[in-house]
Amino acid sequence: MSKIQIFDDVEVKLVQQMGSDASVVQAARVSVTGENVPDVLLNNRDMGLINYLMRELHGTPFESNAMTFYIKAPIVVAREFMRHRIGVSVNEMSGRYTVLPGEFYIPDADRKLINIGTSAKPEFALGDSTQVEAVQLVLEDSYKNSWRAYEYLLEQGIANEVARLALPVGIMTQWYATFNARSMMHFLSLRTQVPTAKHISRPQREIEMVAEKLEAEFGKQFPEVYAAYQRNGRVAP
Amino acid sequence: MSKIQIFDDVEVKLVQQMGSDASVVQAARVSVTGENVPDVLLNNRDMGLINYLMRELHGTPFESNAMTFYIKAPIVVAREFMRHRIGVSVNEMSGRYTVLPGEFYIPDADRKLINIGTSAKPEFALGDSTQVEAVQLVLEDSYKNSWRAYEYLLEQGIANEVARLALPVGIMTQWYATFNARSMMHFLSLRTQVPTAKHISRPQREIEMVAEKLEAEFGKQFPEVYAAYQRNGRVAP
Amino acid sequence: MSKIQIFDDVEVKLVQQMGSDASVVQAARVSVTGENVPDVLLNNRDMGLINYLMRELHGTPFESNAMTFYIKAPIVVAREFMRHRIGVSVNEMSGRYTVLPGEFYIPDADRKLINIGTSAKPEFALGDSTQVEAVQLVLEDSYKNSWRAYEYLLEQGIANEVARLALPVGIMTQWYATFNARSMMHFLSLRTQVPTAKHISRPQREIEMVAEKLEAEFGKQFPEVYAAYQRNGRVAP
Amino acid sequence: MSKIQIFDDVEVKLVQQMGSDASVVQAARVSVTGENVPDVLLNNRDMGLINYLMRELHGTPFESNAMTFYIKAPIVVAREFMRHRIGVSVNEMSGRYTVLPGEFYIPDADRKLINIGTSAKPEFALGDSTQVEAVQLVLEDSYKNSWRAYEYLLEQGIANEVARLALPVGIMTQWYATFNARSMMHFLSLRTQVPTAKHISRPQREIEMVAEKLEAEFGKQFPEVYAAYQRNGRVAP
Repeated sequence: MSKIQIFDDVEVKLVQQMGSDASVVQAARVSVTGENVPDVLLNNRDMGLINYLMRELHGTPFESNAMTFYIKAPIVVAREFMRHRIGVSVNEMSGRYTVLPGEFYIPDADRKLINIGTSAKPEFALGDSTQVEAVQLVLEDSYKNSWRAYEYLLEQGIANEVARLALPVGIMTQWYATFNARSMMHFLSLRTQVPTAKHISRPQREIEMVAEKLEAEFGKQFPEVYAAYQRNGRVAP
Repeated sequence: MSKIQIFDDVEVKLVQQMGSDASVVQAARVSVTGENVPDVLLNNRDMGLINYLMRELHGTPFESNAMTFYIKAPIVVAREFMRHRIGVSVNEMSGRYTVLPGEFYIPDADRKLINIGTSAKPEFALGDSTQVEAVQLVLEDSYKNSWRAYEYLLEQGIANEVARLALPVGIMTQWYATFNARSMMHFLSLRTQVPTAKHISRPQREIEMVAEKLEAEFGKQFPEVYAAYQRNGRVAP
Repeated sequence: MSKIQIFDDVEVKLVQQMGSDASVVQAARVSVTGENVPDVLLNNRDMGLINYLMRELHGTPFESNAMTFYIKAPIVVAREFMRHRIGVSVNEMSGRYTVLPGEFYIPDADRKLINIGTSAKPEFALGDSTQVEAVQLVLEDSYKNSWRAYEYLLEQGIANEVARLALPVGIMTQWYATFNARSMMHFLSLRTQVPTAKHISRPQREIEMVAEKLEAEFGKQFPEVYAAYQRNGRVAP
Repeated sequence: MSKIQIFDDVEVKLVQQMGSDASVVQAARVSVTGENVPDVLLNNRDMGLINYLMRELHGTPFESNAMTFYIKAPIVVAREFMRHRIGVSVNEMSGRYTVLPGEFYIPDADRKLINIGTSAKPEFALGDSTQVEAVQLVLEDSYKNSWRAYEYLLEQGIANEVARLALPVGIMTQWYATFNARSMMHFLSLRTQVPTAKHISRPQREIEMVAEKLEAEFGKQFPEVYAAYQRNGRVAP
């Protein structure tokens, strides 16, 4: 059996981008003037406009831009990620066309492992040392077993798409995702803890880790839009 | 360890439906008359209209209807299924809120197991008896190992969402999916062998099995639309 | 010149429907049990679940249903209506394939005609009798002129699609629109006054008239979903 | 009455862009390798891949890019444009927040004015000189009447959103539209004459004029994707 590699984190890299706070202002200004606003530093009136658009649920001015990310995370995260249908374009590594790398995710010691709430109102807490150890050992052992089955089936000449049935949702996968600012904010509002939000559900920690890294990049590229998003705590549906 | 159950097929059940061939005609007629066409037997002119709409790439008349299905299939199929973003609404069993049932998929002896083509032009063939046996035994064994790890972690008090990392993509899941006729035809054109299509790629057999069962129900509910779809081999993009 | 007909209201008729409050519960329950809930009277736990889904921004359980409406309203409304891209399917009367009927919209005396706020914070008030009369007379006269030009060009053998350039956005048009409950609530949250909303912009009165009629039908078909929507004042984005 | 201005053409300007043929290759390669392909000149194998993706109906690799356009065209075109829901983001000049400029569209002498086919199989031909003159004179006269009504109502203090009811669909409007390559090809396949297409319907000439200008820019930014699109005559639905 070839060796497997263990990851305890996800990876997010900005690949390409188009647009900025100024392009939001520009898209909005066409509504009132048809004028072209040069892509320069924003003044106070522009920043007021961005906040106004966010508060008044004008969604489309936040769509005339794009960001493409490379993301590496376990399948369990990819599964949740792919449920965001609107304004998100995705290309994922295929277990049909290729033999997957033996890379697996195991939570590190900081990951809260136990649910001390209910399933409707989950509240997570750190596990004790036995629990942490159980997760580390049992997952690694189970991953190795699955990986051995996968490799064995491939050696027998079985097609990738059949052999992969043995692989766990904790295996790492990779994908490119293209967002616009609106779809990004939809994603963030559902996959991070928004301070001004009224809901109590929490995302699975691993997709939250992806979301936090996306959020950091988003905040850098669109500082005013991001500030308005945080202030208002919601985006046009 | 609790016992696991093995499935060698997927399940598709029609749950509810709205509309018919006649509602396609009705939606199209509003374009020219604004008139209401009663939901009755179609005449030749109506059937000609359906074929005309399909051939001329008028997509929206095929959207004023709906079908909800219950689907049970392995995660590997659910993963591909969820990539169809447009006009398909899905609710899937959650491995966060619930402990998943120990139900797993293993292909039966008719499933072509080996790729005798390339990855770009795959061509599948039956495996020999050793290969069939390897798949059956190795997958079942691997599933049992994964299931044991999952149950053990749950017993240690680990949260569902962490314990499930050990579960394989061959485990069965369940979901409701709502289509309209247009999104159904998009799905079928990508996940079944369309006689009139020009492309050579083949879907993974397991999602094709889901697609074939959806197709059978769709053909029953929309016989004229289905006939026009087959005749033209494509739908408005 | 053929006579024109004046309308001072919009028309909304429910054509067909699928699903109910119970189908929302059913779609949500698959997440936790995979069980099928019969389409019967809801108990308190079901109603609690609907409210929980709404509050916690679970959007997809509200998509496994459908309603098709026939709508008649001026083009100015159709223009705003068609901007709702997600989950709304539309077929509209075509001015290319047919000669449009000479039906035009003129606001009645109750329609607030003047903006006493700003364009960013509009606040509408009733016009005085001179203003009401001006709107009635000037619009009717202008519509007649446009209609005369349209008819004249058609008589000269000019194609429908060219002759219609003269027609005003106040002319009535007709369309079928299919929503699911989620897209309906998105629509309503942007096109009606939601008591719990924080935004101050107001929709154009004429699309609000359409929205109010849609809302009435929606509330009848999905009373519990509608109550939860009103209570929470927002839907998953 | 203020003067009106007549246009006989539409305007399309590329505002910003992200991605290229190479980014399509890059998005596709993640499926098989997870590797990052530098954004350089494509080799033959890359160009073969693009053609393969197009032919085999792989849609998502064509979505990891973006182009924003400024478009100026009559409302009759905007109406058709806004029906493209998927992957197209639009911000249009608003007749609620602003007084519209007095700019109107009248076809020039090259525009085929008469339909010598049927409505189902339209075939357009040039008008004779009387017809050309009728269109020019009658439309300009009708536009002036409508414009006079609009200006009069505004002078009486009537709100923009009510006064505009008199304005014709031949008035010019302006919008920003953001596409990705896939949504662009969907648009082009429905709004231009595709040589390899099997359908016979023709778009209204004015939206075809917009589409042709978009196509020219698209072909410049994505020459290999565009060539593959033309060769295959269709895109993943």
